[in-house]
Amino acid sequence: MSMRRLKINISYDGTDYGGWQIQPNRISVQEKIEKALHKLTSETIRIHGSGRTDAGVHAKAQIAHFDIEKPFPNKNLKNALNSILPEDIRINNVISVKSDFHARFDVKEKEYHYFIFNGDTISPFDAKYKNHIKKSLNISAMQKAAEYLIGKHDFASFTANAGKELETTVRNVTELKVIKSGKNITIVAKSEGFLYKMVRSIAGHLIRVGLNEISPEATKTILEAANRTNAVKTAPAKGLFLWNVKY
Amino acid sequence: MSMRRLKINISYDGTDYGGWQIQPNRISVQEKIEKALHKLTSETIRIHGSGRTDAGVHAKAQIAHFDIEKPFPNKNLKNALNSILPEDIRINNVISVKSDFHARFDVKEKEYHYFIFNGDTISPFDAKYKNHIKKSLNISAMQKAAEYLIGKHDFASFTANAGKELETTVRNVTELKVIKSGKNITIVAKSEGFLYKMVRSIAGHLIRVGLNEISPEATKTILEAANRTNAVKTAPAKGLFLWNVKY
Repeated sequence: MSMRRLKINISYDGTDYGGWQIQPNRISVQEKIEKALHKLTSETIRIHGSGRTDAGVHAKAQIAHFDIEKPFPNKNLKNALNSILPEDIRINNVISVKSDFHARFDVKEKEYHYFIFNGDTISPFDAKYKNHIKKSLNISAMQKAAEYLIGKHDFASFTANAGKELETTVRNVTELKVIKSGKNITIVAKSEGFLYKMVRSIAGHLIRVGLNEISPEATKTILEAANRTNAVKTAPAKGLFLWNVKY
Repeated sequence: MSMRRLKINISYDGTDYGGWQIQPNRISVQEKIEKALHKLTSETIRIHGSGRTDAGVHAKAQIAHFDIEKPFPNKNLKNALNSILPEDIRINNVISVKSDFHARFDVKEKEYHYFIFNGDTISPFDAKYKNHIKKSLNISAMQKAAEYLIGKHDFASFTANAGKELETTVRNVTELKVIKSGKNITIVAKSEGFLYKMVRSIAGHLIRVGLNEISPEATKTILEAANRTNAVKTAPAKGLFLWNVKY
C-alpha cells in the first residue's frame, strides 16, 4: 500500500474543547480526529492543522493534512469519520493533494470572524458564539481604529506572546472590517498569518474603542510601542471563528 | 404590597432540559425560572406556561404568566432574572397584564417551526437544532400531504396521547407549510392548539412522505382513521421550536 496525502476541511464548535492542538489534561479537536482515523485505519496518523485555535474558539473551516495508507475512497473516509466523530466536529470534505502540500506552511491567507451581540438580551442560541456587550458600541470609532491596523506592522502590542522568542512579530493585515447589521457586529480580519491571540487582542482593543474607553487615535501609539501592555484586552474566545483558509 | 400579574416571553435551548414542565428526576425550564424568581423575591411563585414543550424541544418564544408581590420594575426583574438564569434560558421581556390573563387558556394561536437539514454534512452549529436527513426529500409530495392536514380534523392519528382520555382530539390547523431554502426545510404549523406530540407526529409523517415511504394521498386515510398506529412516526424533538404564541 502506498501513502497518500489528504487535505480535510473541518468545522467545529469549540465550546467543549481545550482548543485545536493536542495537549495534556484537556480534549482537543486534533485528538478527536486522530483517534477517529486510528479507529478506522489502525494506522498512527498525525494530522497537521493550518494553525492552532485556542480553547473555546470555533471553526467554520479549519484545514488539516495527513498521510494515510489505507485505500479508502475520500468520500467514504469523510462519511466514516463523521460517523465516529461527535456532532460538534464535522469533516466537510476530504481531498487528495500532492505529497508536499502542507496545511500550515502553504497558507496564503487566513480569515477570522469575531462576532459581537450588541443589545440587551442575547438569544440562548447565540450565547456560545457571540460576545455579548450590552453597552452601545460606537461603530465609526471602531472602524477608524481598525484603519490604523491594516497593513504591514509590528503587532507585538497585539499578541499574548510578547515574552516569548519569535523570529518576528511583523504581520501584514490585508483586511480589517467592522460590520454592523442590526444588533450584530462582526469584525472580519484577513492576513497571511496572525500572531498568538492576535485577532482576539485586536477585537478586544476595538471593543474598548467602541465603548469610548480609549480613542481610535490611541491605536497608532499602542501599535508603534510594539509592546503588549494592559492597554490591550483580549476579547473572549467564544466570539471567534476561524472562517476560511486559502492556499 | 399588592399582587401583580406579569407575562414573560422566554427563549430556551431545550437540549439540556427534560422539557418545559416541572417533573421528578429531570431539570425543567419552568423549575429554573421559578427558582430564579424565588431567589429574587423569597416568594413562592408558580409560573403558568402557554403549554408544555417536550424534552429537547426549543423555544424562540414561550409565554408564561405569574403573580408577584415584590414591586420590581418589569425591566429590572427581566435583567435580574437573566443574571441568575443559565445562558440557555433568556427572558426577552416582562410586561404587566390584567389579573385575569392566563398564558394557557387565553392562547389565540400557536406557531411551531420544525427544522430539517436535508444534505450530506450538517454544520456542528446546527446539529442540536435541526433534524438531519441525508436522503433527498420530495418537497412537493410533502406539500401535497400537508394540504390534507390543514383545517378542522380529528387528529387522533397524529398524537401520542391516543390511549389517554381527552375531551376531544379535534383541532383546527390554520396553516401547515413546507418551505425549502437550499438544503434547509422548515415545516411551519399554526393552530389555536395542538395535541400532545402533534407537531412532531405531523413532521414525522411528512418526512416519511418526503422519503417516498408513503404516498401523500395516504395522509387522508390515516387522518380519517382517527387512530394512532405505527404508520405515523414521531420526528425527533431537537428540530422543533415553539416559535410564537398569540393572545
